[in-house]
Amino acid sequence: MAVLITGIGELTTNDAELGKLRDAAVVVDGEKIAWVGAAADAPDSDERIDVEGRAVLPGWVDSHTHLVFAGDRTTEFEARMAGKAYSAGGIAVTVEATRAASDEQLAANLRRHVDEAAKQGTTCLETKTGYGLNVEDEVRSARIATDVADEVTFLGAHLVPPGADAESYVDLVCGDMLDAVAPLVRWADVFCETGAFDEAQSGRVLKAARERGLGLRVHGNQLGEGPGVRLAVELGAASVDHCTYLSEADVAALAASDTVATLLPACDLSTRQPLAPARRLLDAGATVALASNANPGSSYTTSMAFCVTTAVLQMRMTIEEAVWSATAGGARALRRDDVGVIRPGARADLQVLEAPSVTHLAYRPGVPLTAGVWRCGRALTSCFAAK
Amino acid sequence: MAVLITGIGELTTNDAELGKLRDAAVVVDGEKIAWVGAAADAPDSDERIDVEGRAVLPGWVDSHTHLVFAGDRTTEFEARMAGKAYSAGGIAVTVEATRAASDEQLAANLRRHVDEAAKQGTTCLETKTGYGLNVEDEVRSARIATDVADEVTFLGAHLVPPGADAESYVDLVCGDMLDAVAPLVRWADVFCETGAFDEAQSGRVLKAARERGLGLRVHGNQLGEGPGVRLAVELGAASVDHCTYLSEADVAALAASDTVATLLPACDLSTRQPLAPARRLLDAGATVALASNANPGSSYTTSMAFCVTTAVLQMRMTIEEAVWSATAGGARALRRDDVGVIRPGARADLQVLEAPSVTHLAYRPGVPLTAGVWRCGRALTSCFAAK
Ligand SMILES: [Zn+2]
Ligand SMILES: [Zn+2]
Repeated sequence: MAVLITGIGELTTNDAELGKLRDAAVVVDGEKIAWVGAAADAPDSDERIDVEGRAVLPGWVDSHTHLVFAGDRTTEFEARMAGKAYSAGGIAVTVEATRAASDEQLAANLRRHVDEAAKQGTTCLETKTGYGLNVEDEVRSARIATDVADEVTFLGAHLVPPGADAESYVDLVCGDMLDAVAPLVRWADVFCETGAFDEAQSGRVLKAARERGLGLRVHGNQLGEGPGVRLAVELGAASVDHCTYLSEADVAALAASDTVATLLPACDLSTRQPLAPARRLLDAGATVALASNANPGSSYTTSMAFCVTTAVLQMRMTIEEAVWSATAGGARALRRDDVGVIRPGARADLQVLEAPSVTHLAYRPGVPLTAGVWRCGRALTSCFAAK
Repeated sequence: MAVLITGIGELTTNDAELGKLRDAAVVVDGEKIAWVGAAADAPDSDERIDVEGRAVLPGWVDSHTHLVFAGDRTTEFEARMAGKAYSAGGIAVTVEATRAASDEQLAANLRRHVDEAAKQGTTCLETKTGYGLNVEDEVRSARIATDVADEVTFLGAHLVPPGADAESYVDLVCGDMLDAVAPLVRWADVFCETGAFDEAQSGRVLKAARERGLGLRVHGNQLGEGPGVRLAVELGAASVDHCTYLSEADVAALAASDTVATLLPACDLSTRQPLAPARRLLDAGATVALASNANPGSSYTTSMAFCVTTAVLQMRMTIEEAVWSATAGGARALRRDDVGVIRPGARADLQVLEAPSVTHLAYRPGVPLTAGVWRCGRALTSCFAAK
């Protein structure tokens, strides 16, 4: 059944030919977008929804979250805000709680956060394992994630589990753990950072994953300059995430590659790090994505709008750049061309703002502007009645 | 009719004796709070609402907004984000649109923004005139504001209107304009800043207002150090707002006075100014309030939660300080003791968070956490059914 969404004051398509349209309409047919154009030219349709001049854009594509977890880290956040140093060791707290949780508890917690994100406009979401850190718990994390998330990444190399030897743990990740998890997921990732995995260890993990046919992602350059970006580019990773500290060589490498630089501004702020150098990356010609890094430790938010607001107000991205990076940029980081874009044939993922233009995402910081969300053609939340 | 709100996981009262309570309950009787204490000790009640472990705190007291306006300044915001300098001249655009709007249009726009704020937990709101800038339009702005806002401030001295002579305009403000507006409002304010009103002009306006029995407020030290804070303290103003640029003498003067330093972080970010030095003020012993400065030019947000989040993540206020400043601090800036606090006899203004503690306001940036709001004992928005 086709639905005509009309009265669109401003339509951000992210399609090179369609561009940004005024007084536009979209026809959704089943799970896909069937037609995009001027409201005056719209074809007849079974159902008609008038959004009365509001802005419509693709749903957010959140390409970086860690939402298969249990437990609480409020106390750690409070300690950090009270001036104590950020410690990657906090991940171990979540690992313990995650291992102790039942499948049902993990699935319910994941579902609750994905629903929370969807109400705020996120229609395509990646999530990761990485709080299991043994074969059994990494496998079950991957299984639970695949039931709910659009894209799943294996992050067995998130942290050397407490008490384990780093080299032996990397052997396990590259061997039995990858053997068991690879059939369930599309991506593999490694936390390449001082205190987590060094360049050689990270390279081993990524190459082992590539041999099993997985696409690659890297956590890198979060706490200081390091080998993460270089390694990601060398191995053809789809994305390197964080990029808070970048050398000129890192920026140049990203600009000359297909590897997306995924920036996580809510994480930078929540850990009181500097904000990632978006302007340097964009000016050099790199592809930038924005993501939430939703996780209970360093960035406990599902709000892509907050990331966009911060990118514009504080990272000097233009509104168009920030919106693109949080939609099409995320899709690029996930090597998808069916989401993050509104054009015929794309998945019918779109959001309506309680505002006449996407500018209001930065102009109105903190105001919840999500007025309606469709995912795969289905209304998830909407204040618009069909007629 | 009395309503018992129980199952409160964490109750922030802002009352020195009651402090912060766990497993608490509140009884609301008519427009007032009738009882506060442990859930186990709660008296019988006609109606009972269980908030199931969520955090409850006073509704936000937004002590600084400019919401009697018409017109749109999206384009100016876009220009500023594209790197053009902030110009106070933008106010004139709003003045023109406000003068041209009907009473009904101005009232509807004000109501819409106050409702938007209320849905986000703001239960006491100050607003200002200042887009009329002639006797007739300042009077009608004040009249419209008093119908909707809790507190109204006369800001005839917002800007010298285009084409007018500064001294003659100050004569008008101190004479006919104050004569006409003073009976309608409780407060007077002046924009004491290079490009608006200088120290002598600001002093004349404030003294003339004081002679008519109005309480004083000052916009000062927004764009650079200047006389605003000194003048506010000398004249016993209730609040000096912005305080982005402060000398050591300004900080010391505020600390030694009853004048509240009202910080406007969304404005600082939206104009790409530095964030106000909250830590210096607090460490010196000054009283700090947080407010939205909601206005279509420099800070188009009604989100007090965004201000709290920013204060904690970026201005190094503790969560307790930020929450206090956005509730009791705002009340102090408005010289009210019936709002911003949950204790018997206070106005029944309270909000329920979709979270177990106020920490989540900073821990979960951008996630809309308002689960229920009561103002004067009436539920404005709530996902809790009474039983
Ligand atoms: Zn991450
Ligand atoms: Zn103001």
